[in-house]
Amino acid sequence: MKVIIVGGVAGGASCAARLRRLDEKAEILMVERGPYVSYANCGLPYHVGGSIEKESSLLVATEQTFREQFAIDCRTRCEVVGISSKEKTVQVKNHATGEVTTERYDKLVLSPGAAPIRPPLPGIDLPGIFSVRTVPDARSIREWLDRGAADGCGMNSYTGFQTVTKPNRAVVVGGGFIGLEMVENLVHRGLEVTLVEKLNQVMPPLDPEMARLVERYMVKHGVRLELNDGVAGFQQSADGSLEVLTSSGKKHPACIVILAIGVRAETALAKMAGLEIGQRGGIRVDEQMRTSNPDIFAVGDAVEVKDFVTGQWALIPLAGPANRQGRIAADVIAGRNSRFRGTQGTSICQIFEAAIAQTGASEKLLTQLGDKDFEKIYLYPNSHAGYYPGAKMLAIKVLFRKSDGRLLGAQVLGEDGVPKRIDSFAMAIQMGCTIYDLEESELCYAPPYGSAKDPVNFAGMVAADVLRGDMPLCHWNSVGNGFLLDVRNPPELAVESVPGAVNIPLPALRARLGELPRDREILVICRSAQRAYYATRILLQNGFKVRNISGGMLSRSMLMAN
Amino acid sequence: MKVIIVGGVAGGASCAARLRRLDEKAEILMVERGPYVSYANCGLPYHVGGSIEKESSLLVATEQTFREQFAIDCRTRCEVVGISSKEKTVQVKNHATGEVTTERYDKLVLSPGAAPIRPPLPGIDLPGIFSVRTVPDARSIREWLDRGAADGCGMNSYTGFQTVTKPNRAVVVGGGFIGLEMVENLVHRGLEVTLVEKLNQVMPPLDPEMARLVERYMVKHGVRLELNDGVAGFQQSADGSLEVLTSSGKKHPACIVILAIGVRAETALAKMAGLEIGQRGGIRVDEQMRTSNPDIFAVGDAVEVKDFVTGQWALIPLAGPANRQGRIAADVIAGRNSRFRGTQGTSICQIFEAAIAQTGASEKLLTQLGDKDFEKIYLYPNSHAGYYPGAKMLAIKVLFRKSDGRLLGAQVLGEDGVPKRIDSFAMAIQMGCTIYDLEESELCYAPPYGSAKDPVNFAGMVAADVLRGDMPLCHWNSVGNGFLLDVRNPPELAVESVPGAVNIPLPALRARLGELPRDREILVICRSAQRAYYATRILLQNGFKVRNISGGMLSRSMLMAN
Repeated sequence: MKVIIVGGVAGGASCAARLRRLDEKAEILMVERGPYVSYANCGLPYHVGGSIEKESSLLVATEQTFREQFAIDCRTRCEVVGISSKEKTVQVKNHATGEVTTERYDKLVLSPGAAPIRPPLPGIDLPGIFSVRTVPDARSIREWLDRGAADGCGMNSYTGFQTVTKPNRAVVVGGGFIGLEMVENLVHRGLEVTLVEKLNQVMPPLDPEMARLVERYMVKHGVRLELNDGVAGFQQSADGSLEVLTSSGKKHPACIVILAIGVRAETALAKMAGLEIGQRGGIRVDEQMRTSNPDIFAVGDAVEVKDFVTGQWALIPLAGPANRQGRIAADVIAGRNSRFRGTQGTSICQIFEAAIAQTGASEKLLTQLGDKDFEKIYLYPNSHAGYYPGAKMLAIKVLFRKSDGRLLGAQVLGEDGVPKRIDSFAMAIQMGCTIYDLEESELCYAPPYGSAKDPVNFAGMVAADVLRGDMPLCHWNSVGNGFLLDVRNPPELAVESVPGAVNIPLPALRARLGELPRDREILVICRSAQRAYYATRILLQNGFKVRNISGGMLSRSMLMAN
Repeated sequence: MKVIIVGGVAGGASCAARLRRLDEKAEILMVERGPYVSYANCGLPYHVGGSIEKESSLLVATEQTFREQFAIDCRTRCEVVGISSKEKTVQVKNHATGEVTTERYDKLVLSPGAAPIRPPLPGIDLPGIFSVRTVPDARSIREWLDRGAADGCGMNSYTGFQTVTKPNRAVVVGGGFIGLEMVENLVHRGLEVTLVEKLNQVMPPLDPEMARLVERYMVKHGVRLELNDGVAGFQQSADGSLEVLTSSGKKHPACIVILAIGVRAETALAKMAGLEIGQRGGIRVDEQMRTSNPDIFAVGDAVEVKDFVTGQWALIPLAGPANRQGRIAADVIAGRNSRFRGTQGTSICQIFEAAIAQTGASEKLLTQLGDKDFEKIYLYPNSHAGYYPGAKMLAIKVLFRKSDGRLLGAQVLGEDGVPKRIDSFAMAIQMGCTIYDLEESELCYAPPYGSAKDPVNFAGMVAADVLRGDMPLCHWNSVGNGFLLDVRNPPELAVESVPGAVNIPLPALRARLGELPRDREILVICRSAQRAYYATRILLQNGFKVRNISGGMLSRSMLMAN
């Protein structure tokens, strides 16, 4: 059996190595267009920023590894330029020699990835405009940043013998994962960075009010945020520096521009082979990673996958799923019955001292799908016991099904303990947890690491209070003409208060029930909604109509920034 | 309805607050023997060590909070000294006045906790010997450490105007959680610390080979470890300093002794009320925290709970379960149908720069129970992508059922990323995950936080390789007379090698199969068992009888230290 694998990075490399483990006899040819296989593309922004110093650190496994350890015919700088699915052959062009050879396959695996989008805008090909996909891309960016730049662009730095002018202004176009990682890393290198994003938020998979928190970290670190403004073109000024022109007519000067608008599944080969393409533009595969042609498999960023929370097809260009898919394709080719379970879009991104992470469905997505059977809560617990030094506030949004309590999604931001919580939520979603299960979870606790009630438990308890009817909930965008009751203490109100809200501190509430209306719905406010919950319980049991405003003043500041 | 709650810390305080939320009208009396309610007993060692500077930080909620926010009659320094379950009354003694009053209850909740064991050894009452249970305990220890100690015991420190001699030698008796936390905090304060432990390992819930790693951190930080040696008594030397005498006849000088031998469920009141006591010496309760008397509930460290992994009754003195039990008792008293699901013993402990964590069953426990339907694996993955700075090796042991792959337990030690992994395992065990589920988990990955194959996925993959028969496994303690094949590279062998093992580096293996015996079982070794896995696959498919030694050289160093 001869298997040809097109693309030697995450999905392709995982497939090749797994297939060899399962089948010592198979003839395996792995063809990679670029100069490297199995490199750490997720590390590229950090190599540009300098946290990962050496380029060689990014090379997880080399051509030699594949040849020697796995007996795989691994060819870099070789590109599959043609497919005949009828004859089961591919044309492989060797970029070093220009030679094109024909290779026969029994099974073909496509792992071409997704290419950074480069819209055909005026000036898009000017020098100094980069994408971030490959090791050579990162190298070019580093070289551009390290070398003296054009006049009018840069800061002088005395390096001993000569004055070198280095680029000092960057524009990053696109506020997704790669865009944000590049922003952070360029700031880390000392550049002034402007982030231009067409949408009204960074990090599109997040809900916008959570994105607000990410944006605050950007602004705190001096990043100029230009939301709601697309790029219209690029031009070179007289002194050689770049200008980024936006739809709104602004001009942003730049010594370097990073394009991180998004990626597009590479489907040229798939189309050439007549394979089915999905509605989202990715290669359509079944649970076993088989395309519409039973001898051709596809994995990684080029394929559409099922989001198992929403049941929708999605393009989710993440490394974890790509690797899993590669192994599953290998299993199936080797005669096993493995199946890809779909994806839940778990992701995390470092934002300077903070991390933002997400798993499952967002409110935005559920709303788009017309789903109305969900509720959301906001909470702001400490990352670990508040009495132990270093505790940081986490901002958590949790989505769950109203009808049965099933956990649908979570978004977590904070400076400590984010991975711990998002992975608990991720495992919970995978296993079909309800919020009632989260209440009972036994997670690790010692003062430096958590709380006796972990934030994940706390999320379950708050959500369960809502579904059990113990705490009717409302949100800042639906307060209507409710009677606003603020149960905080007067010094807190002096800092920030809600116009029109009546203040009765929680300890005084039982004695002052007579001051509250019985004919209007009372909406209770405190800092984080905890004391408001206690107040809600008192009022409910005294016959008032009452709801707690989720997340209190803390969520107000997120939502009001919208 | 009048509810009396005996004990105002974790379980009792949770019960009281929850009950008030559910029932505005109930009369709630919470009686606490000590001066404080709802204090952070988990923080006491860190207050002694100074990381938590102020005693007031430990007081999570005060008597006043309970009175004002929760309208609870909260009485500190009051002790329940008698129960008549027939008359449904308790005798409450006010330690301030000496007065004893009788209080009637409809429902009674016992949350007396567990008391540090103080065996009746010679000299046990000498000054300078402390337990760590309450805020006053911590205060006494701090005062003892801060004040000038007896002659012959201490280091001189010049504090400006006078020379103060402070204690400089401590003996901690008992290597469980509190013992280890006290060791760390005393080292942090600059004391020379000796840890005396009767068993052959610290941290008894761990398997001994994992405890070895904890012990290495102790030794690295200068702690004198005295395992397999119990305390026989204490004496005061002529200069006033203490000596700890051990069963083996050793004498350890000490300026302060911390007793952390373990705790004993406080059952005096329960016995007085004629309640059923379990075989392990804790109060027996049902899933609703009801004792053998339907009007009396019990929660927290004093009760026996079901370990839901093994189905055994256990005493698990942890804060998380205590709080959950308190809330459940309140629910049931308020007429709800809540049930405690049991415990899985999830715990974590800081060991200087490392953390050790555990969830589910240990090998030791399974073996004690005569369970043979389990397998174990060891793995040593990086805490995050190896190419990103700061990655640290994790040591992970995972236990799973051979017959169906169900995850039974996990132990994780490392200097980074431990809470993230143990909580994923904990959630997985709660939800009845198999190791096949772990393979497919979608956990968060970005270079600073994880890997595309997270250690949790990796654990699932290794275990699944075993159960699918792709990688027959053996362990260092059962190599028997197998043929040892080391597939590492020669420079690695120069550092450490296994006597009698034949070396064929992995890349040369396919060409040198002729050198291997076909009539003996081949046991493959490498550093962490990954290359050995590749070798195992090659050999299996070439008709050899072969097994991989789990965890390779890294687990050998743990197991050989046993």
